[in-house]
Amino acid sequence: MSANGRLLVVPNTLDFGAAPLDLRLLMPQGVIDAAAALGHWACENAKTTRAFLKRVDAVTPLAQPLQAIDIRELPRTGKGRAAEASPAGLEPWLDVLRAGGDVGLLSEAGLPAVADPGALAVALAHQWEATVVPLPGASALSLALAASGLDGQSFAFVGYVPQDAAARSARLRELEATSRRLGQTQLLIETP
Amino acid sequence: MSANGRLLVVPNTLDFGAAPLDLRLLMPQGVIDAAAALGHWACENAKTTRAFLKRVDAVTPLAQPLQAIDIRELPRTGKGRAAEASPAGLEPWLDVLRAGGDVGLLSEAGLPAVADPGALAVALAHQWEATVVPLPGASALSLALAASGLDGQSFAFVGYVPQDAAARSARLRELEATSRRLGQTQLLIETP
Repeated sequence: MSANGRLLVVPNTLDFGAAPLDLRLLMPQGVIDAAAALGHWACENAKTTRAFLKRVDAVTPLAQPLQAIDIRELPRTGKGRAAEASPAGLEPWLDVLRAGGDVGLLSEAGLPAVADPGALAVALAHQWEATVVPLPGASALSLALAASGLDGQSFAFVGYVPQDAAARSARLRELEATSRRLGQTQLLIETP
Repeated sequence: MSANGRLLVVPNTLDFGAAPLDLRLLMPQGVIDAAAALGHWACENAKTTRAFLKRVDAVTPLAQPLQAIDIRELPRTGKGRAAEASPAGLEPWLDVLRAGGDVGLLSEAGLPAVADPGALAVALAHQWEATVVPLPGASALSLALAASGLDGQSFAFVGYVPQDAAARSARLRELEATSRRLGQTQLLIETP
């Protein structure tokens, strides 16, 4: 199937849009302008997407009023976290792409599809023969790695570690052994 | 040892600075302004650093003339590639940081210390108790992963694969097996 539209992978800031912020400090003007032009969004969270678009609007006026913009959350898994449960839930965006329209993909923070939902939407966009355009911006993983002083020539991102103390300890020992054996920096994620 | 200065990890564009480009399209104004203020650079390549600073100057005038800016390449390994051969070669920047000055760390393209030299300079900055500030920008690895549609919740960056056909084929089969066994996307790099 041939869809002539584009899926723009749009980086969000890393602060979850809570406080006032001049987006120009953290985001290229070209990315802000591209976001301001979009009428359709596939997102992790609709509320943080609206907050993001308000910040965009303060720099580059949105091409249409915020309430007229089509903002849909990615299908959720059973855990209630936004993720791609099934390709079926992604059909509304297929219609837009088929009609030659552009769709933005946005996370609550950072780069979609990197330690965040969105990969299935991107994979389907490729399958639909839409053009996928990743835009440059902040990725917490890259920034953490760059600022760590650890080896950035060989590394793995392994997601979350278990909450249970014994399982957590075992997993951390396993990652330490992998790091030594492969000479590979291990990046993991933790929520407050 | 206590150094009061800051090491700013500055993202470069991904095009090696060859053609004319309005930096605002690809880089946050805040990052451009920070780069324009720096008088000392630790870089992978002095020539591409000067090209970068010319692009910065076109948006935000440099705080001092380009020829007055202290631009030094990271120590090279025997192979002639910029890398951190020894901590000794990093002492000029220690002096700047000790005096409370700021130093920028810059790659030829993308984010320093991520699939690029710079990690040892960052590690030493931590050891010297300087403040390390990573700035948001394009990373080829993150953009490739985000645009791939492959799993971005679990991935590894494994660097280059061998040039020799047999060794290359063996390494690719090994990476494929690792990918299957761990459910882990494998990112590798290739030069034209």
